[in-house]
Amino acid sequence: MRPVSPERRELRVAMIGHRFMGRAHSNGWRQAGHFFELPAKPVLALLCGRDATAVADAASRYGFEATSTDWRETVARDDVDVVDVCTPGDSHAEIAIAAAEAGKAVLCEKPLANDPAEARAMLDAVKRAGVAHMVCHNYRRAPAVLLARRILDSGRLGRIHHYRGTYLQDWIVDPEFPRVWRLEKARAGSGALGDIASHSIDLARFLVGEICEVSGLLETFVEERPLPEGGGRGAVDVDDAALALLRFESGAIGSVEGSRFAPGRKNWNRFEINASRGSLVFDLERINELRVYEEDGPDSGFRTILATDPSHPFVEAWWPPGHALGYEHTFVHTLVDFVRAVCGGPPATPDFADGLRNQEVLDAIERSARARSWAPAH
Amino acid sequence: MRPVSPERRELRVAMIGHRFMGRAHSNGWRQAGHFFELPAKPVLALLCGRDATAVADAASRYGFEATSTDWRETVARDDVDVVDVCTPGDSHAEIAIAAAEAGKAVLCEKPLANDPAEARAMLDAVKRAGVAHMVCHNYRRAPAVLLARRILDSGRLGRIHHYRGTYLQDWIVDPEFPRVWRLEKARAGSGALGDIASHSIDLARFLVGEICEVSGLLETFVEERPLPEGGGRGAVDVDDAALALLRFESGAIGSVEGSRFAPGRKNWNRFEINASRGSLVFDLERINELRVYEEDGPDSGFRTILATDPSHPFVEAWWPPGHALGYEHTFVHTLVDFVRAVCGGPPATPDFADGLRNQEVLDAIERSARARSWAPAH
Amino acid sequence: MRPVSPERRELRVAMIGHRFMGRAHSNGWRQAGHFFELPAKPVLALLCGRDATAVADAASRYGFEATSTDWRETVARDDVDVVDVCTPGDSHAEIAIAAAEAGKAVLCEKPLANDPAEARAMLDAVKRAGVAHMVCHNYRRAPAVLLARRILDSGRLGRIHHYRGTYLQDWIVDPEFPRVWRLEKARAGSGALGDIASHSIDLARFLVGEICEVSGLLETFVEERPLPEGGGRGAVDVDDAALALLRFESGAIGSVEGSRFAPGRKNWNRFEINASRGSLVFDLERINELRVYEEDGPDSGFRTILATDPSHPFVEAWWPPGHALGYEHTFVHTLVDFVRAVCGGPPATPDFADGLRNQEVLDAIERSARARSWAPAH
Amino acid sequence: MRPVSPERRELRVAMIGHRFMGRAHSNGWRQAGHFFELPAKPVLALLCGRDATAVADAASRYGFEATSTDWRETVARDDVDVVDVCTPGDSHAEIAIAAAEAGKAVLCEKPLANDPAEARAMLDAVKRAGVAHMVCHNYRRAPAVLLARRILDSGRLGRIHHYRGTYLQDWIVDPEFPRVWRLEKARAGSGALGDIASHSIDLARFLVGEICEVSGLLETFVEERPLPEGGGRGAVDVDDAALALLRFESGAIGSVEGSRFAPGRKNWNRFEINASRGSLVFDLERINELRVYEEDGPDSGFRTILATDPSHPFVEAWWPPGHALGYEHTFVHTLVDFVRAVCGGPPATPDFADGLRNQEVLDAIERSARARSWAPAH
Repeated sequence: MRPVSPERRELRVAMIGHRFMGRAHSNGWRQAGHFFELPAKPVLALLCGRDATAVADAASRYGFEATSTDWRETVARDDVDVVDVCTPGDSHAEIAIAAAEAGKAVLCEKPLANDPAEARAMLDAVKRAGVAHMVCHNYRRAPAVLLARRILDSGRLGRIHHYRGTYLQDWIVDPEFPRVWRLEKARAGSGALGDIASHSIDLARFLVGEICEVSGLLETFVEERPLPEGGGRGAVDVDDAALALLRFESGAIGSVEGSRFAPGRKNWNRFEINASRGSLVFDLERINELRVYEEDGPDSGFRTILATDPSHPFVEAWWPPGHALGYEHTFVHTLVDFVRAVCGGPPATPDFADGLRNQEVLDAIERSARARSWAPAH
Repeated sequence: MRPVSPERRELRVAMIGHRFMGRAHSNGWRQAGHFFELPAKPVLALLCGRDATAVADAASRYGFEATSTDWRETVARDDVDVVDVCTPGDSHAEIAIAAAEAGKAVLCEKPLANDPAEARAMLDAVKRAGVAHMVCHNYRRAPAVLLARRILDSGRLGRIHHYRGTYLQDWIVDPEFPRVWRLEKARAGSGALGDIASHSIDLARFLVGEICEVSGLLETFVEERPLPEGGGRGAVDVDDAALALLRFESGAIGSVEGSRFAPGRKNWNRFEINASRGSLVFDLERINELRVYEEDGPDSGFRTILATDPSHPFVEAWWPPGHALGYEHTFVHTLVDFVRAVCGGPPATPDFADGLRNQEVLDAIERSARARSWAPAH
Repeated sequence: MRPVSPERRELRVAMIGHRFMGRAHSNGWRQAGHFFELPAKPVLALLCGRDATAVADAASRYGFEATSTDWRETVARDDVDVVDVCTPGDSHAEIAIAAAEAGKAVLCEKPLANDPAEARAMLDAVKRAGVAHMVCHNYRRAPAVLLARRILDSGRLGRIHHYRGTYLQDWIVDPEFPRVWRLEKARAGSGALGDIASHSIDLARFLVGEICEVSGLLETFVEERPLPEGGGRGAVDVDDAALALLRFESGAIGSVEGSRFAPGRKNWNRFEINASRGSLVFDLERINELRVYEEDGPDSGFRTILATDPSHPFVEAWWPPGHALGYEHTFVHTLVDFVRAVCGGPPATPDFADGLRNQEVLDAIERSARARSWAPAH
Repeated sequence: MRPVSPERRELRVAMIGHRFMGRAHSNGWRQAGHFFELPAKPVLALLCGRDATAVADAASRYGFEATSTDWRETVARDDVDVVDVCTPGDSHAEIAIAAAEAGKAVLCEKPLANDPAEARAMLDAVKRAGVAHMVCHNYRRAPAVLLARRILDSGRLGRIHHYRGTYLQDWIVDPEFPRVWRLEKARAGSGALGDIASHSIDLARFLVGEICEVSGLLETFVEERPLPEGGGRGAVDVDDAALALLRFESGAIGSVEGSRFAPGRKNWNRFEINASRGSLVFDLERINELRVYEEDGPDSGFRTILATDPSHPFVEAWWPPGHALGYEHTFVHTLVDFVRAVCGGPPATPDFADGLRNQEVLDAIERSARARSWAPAH
């Protein structure tokens, strides 16, 4: 019997926030090194949250070495290399800036901040500190989405004319669903706009290019909901649904939509791109599939590529063709690239500059909706 | 051997225009009585067009008794009961008004006219004359679309929040496709907007209700094309794609889009409706299917109804369950209802008032796109 | 006003049987000439059935000139060119043979007969008489099926290894559904086997080639049902479901299945073919689509061809791309080819020789199921 | 900063074999405790393989503490609680029996053995030793498959009439694909039959019940292939494709098919069940979906349940609705139940008795194919 020697360099991670995103990120950190060759081994060093009992329970489940209830002390520790910000949006700026100032690499959940000013301050901080930074728009790294990008980059489909991004969910369509933090402007910044339409905007920027102007529409269908802690009802001051028409710098046109009021759509993050010689369709509920049309005479048709071939981005590390990957793999892939960036590899995108751009588009949609006219995106 | 006695009353039809729509309408007139009980037997009396040879050929193929090259004389004939207007949009008003003034029932292809003023004049004319009138938005009478309406009317799905109408084709994406009449504003009124987005708007009005305001975007990707008759290139002065955000009087919100630049989408007239307790999806390329989601706990899912059951609208007249109907049946159903209306049955919709409303929405989208701000729909 | 002159040659048709298939065939006869260039104009001369009232009603609806209740006299008339046999299987042989002996071209509904001996006698009769003959396996002439054949014939997919034919319906799954004629061996010959699996066998022969041996399984789930005329219950002596493994002469292997006990499958006539360089899938419930896989590297995928392009078989006569055809068009196409054959064009298949081959495979499946071992197909 | 105390009881695992299945199982062992409450914490103690370098590399990647090249010594160690057999089929019996005799709980990859005699000996050994045992038919624990079982158990769909299991892949369709171990009878026992059709048989037994007789067909399309190590060609003595008709003890009928010659089908493990009041369809390439038809009048239709709801089996531990799981989760779920069984919870199935039954069905298919007649399954 011979012992296994894990003498690889370590990368010590402190995570702030431990709920849904904490679970998804910690799985990503754990799994990355088991499937990919990494320049350093991520170590789940510290999990930080306000509720000591909850954070201890999560740390034990997720595999963290230790816990803390003080994020300021956490991000400043010498034995921490990376800070991973998984809290609600209203604390992103403060934490990320402190982490950057402490010289830590920073990964931040999306949307980067609750408004462009915060996002700009965050970008300034990471640039000033010279630390690696990334915003976690995980869907960019679904293999099918990366395959879409590869196909577009090849030029085979020609010039893009249309982008259609639609992100639908249904979890608050019941008017008695409680007024959770995601429905409070002070915590979440916005509603469907920042939470899900922001993903559609990120994919638009990733696949098509910069958006130059927007015409937005925001709607709140249910304006008051039961408070989660009981004791009456509270106002919903964010959007239940957000729509926008888009013009891109390239001349392409398009639309994005986010709604939490679409019964049956559980996590329906769909885009369709129409270019001059073909089209692409992706739907997150079928995360392993990319539908592609290439104009090649009358027997052409949309074909469904199972993006599970070893030649597809990130897939070789996993399973043979036809063996499905899932939601969590998008985080693993994000962290693989971030670890490489932190260890001196190429910078990973989307970075905080992308996060700021995204925030500016969100802000433009809000301004446009208020003004009832088109608004520039920057 | 006993002779069959077709002593039913006759309804003599004059059709103006004999190309694509002439073929579709004439098939509808011929087939209606073979599958449905009608109060009168439609007779294809006269086919009218400018090119005597072409019209003779078409008449022989379609089964018309006689032809004419003079529409004014045709619509005024005593032995004509119904005038069916299948010409390009720029002549709809003149012909329909003359027909109404001659006391004929008038069926008119969509869009009703090339602008609201013409549409209003047409509505005035049929009202003044007291004749039956209908605009042929044939897709209303796909059984799956009528089933969608029946389900919405039942109230089972609750209050409608979202309408998403997308009508995509790809026939002009090649920049060398010629500048046919549908690409000339003077003939066609508009491009994708009036030709196909108008269908999405009609379905929106049929299924959701009146639209009150719009924010539009029009785009022409290819501004010059070869002239069909040869001899150089001509300007394209209509839209290649038209998008709009919508607000409905009911409080619902939505969008419509028409584009002829979506490779692989041959006749993709799709709508999705999200209501408070369920959702509906229809796609014309799968004309026999309606997808319905009804919220009923965690085992709910979108179900695909094959709208081919005898209990589904118009289906009993045709084939057993699972035996597909097609595009042409939507015209047969339209004519069945129109024949009944002409013979004293309930008025058939969409009528010219609907056609005018539709035209007003088209016009509002154009005005909004020019003004770069929201515009009222009426 | 100029009269249209229909001076084309006529082909006078007598149809025996006027129910479901009578309706489908008569529509085919009527429509063929309106959409296709034919060497002769079919005239619906005589409709023949046992119930004078029912046949008169049907004749009026279908557009026949006259009716009869005497099939023997009908098939012998001088003014009849073609006899179209649309009765239950137990009378096919008698009628078709008489028609052939009277020198008429004969079209016969499938399965050709109720056993191979009858089928052989029918084939002998038409050969002896030298008349045109065809068995109506209409699904061969769905454009998507013909496109499948065209693709296979091109050799692009290589050598065929697998055929999988599955024809599922659900109309008798309720044990209280009555014992109609299709559930009586004396009338129908067999159950799902002859009615629907026979289509799968025809498509196998059309697309793959001759079947050389079979292993069959027949099952009757509900052995007694209410009599349709009331008055108690009657035995079901045909199969509710029929399955068979197949070996083809080419070395391909496969299976066919027909069942009327598959809830939700309304008319699910599906086949899948796997060849050495690609695969094909067709499903009748989506009659306008053919799914094709061609091996071309890791970005290959099944593509859905909308078989509605003018270049696809029979489509040019109809509508533009993306405009769906339906069930009834398969009959129109069958009759187009039959009319051409009758008027001296190339013989139309499947002919009575094909019908006999099909019958032999059906018979082999029955024999194999009884013997519980493989049986030769001829 | 407070340390996390992992004082839970440990379960020390030795894994024999480290290639594809070793990777899948080790991931399952690692992940189980991070997402599920377990009575003991699995520890990846020892990884055993013949090639010391390869096994060291795998152990480092998978997270094992130590390695060995001697399986006999490994399964006998005192500090091992569980032996997980991930080798090719020809060594399953020897290893599993030794492990059982050493008092270890045994998990064994499928198929349990290469013939019924071996399987019977394995079952005898674990029974005699009184140790926990399980065969890893992982697809039983896809949430959609468990949901299928839950729906069937509820009785809502009534009596099952049909099972149709089809497992298609395409990885050896190229005749130049090498003669790997899976194509050698001495190593693999059989070809598509034991490798993939065995999964369809396991699902048949899980969902429908015991199979009582079969009619089988085996075919080898390519009888000679290049040797993987170079140096000429070797015979393929296993089946490329295996088909069988089935009769179940319950009276249901069905079929299974496994083929590695279906281009475009990457891991297409599909089943369809037709019962008296509904149907179920599952396709592994869309692992998160279950399609269900429940007869409920003319607006019924197949609905697609996203089996990602917290109420669906095993899902609550993972992500919110609509967030896809993948292939690897089926192993995690298998191990969760096995850990619980090992620690005194309810026995986990499929166990070695199921493995034996499966083997008997495989054997019956081979015997039937040779005899060209039906064979009893036991």
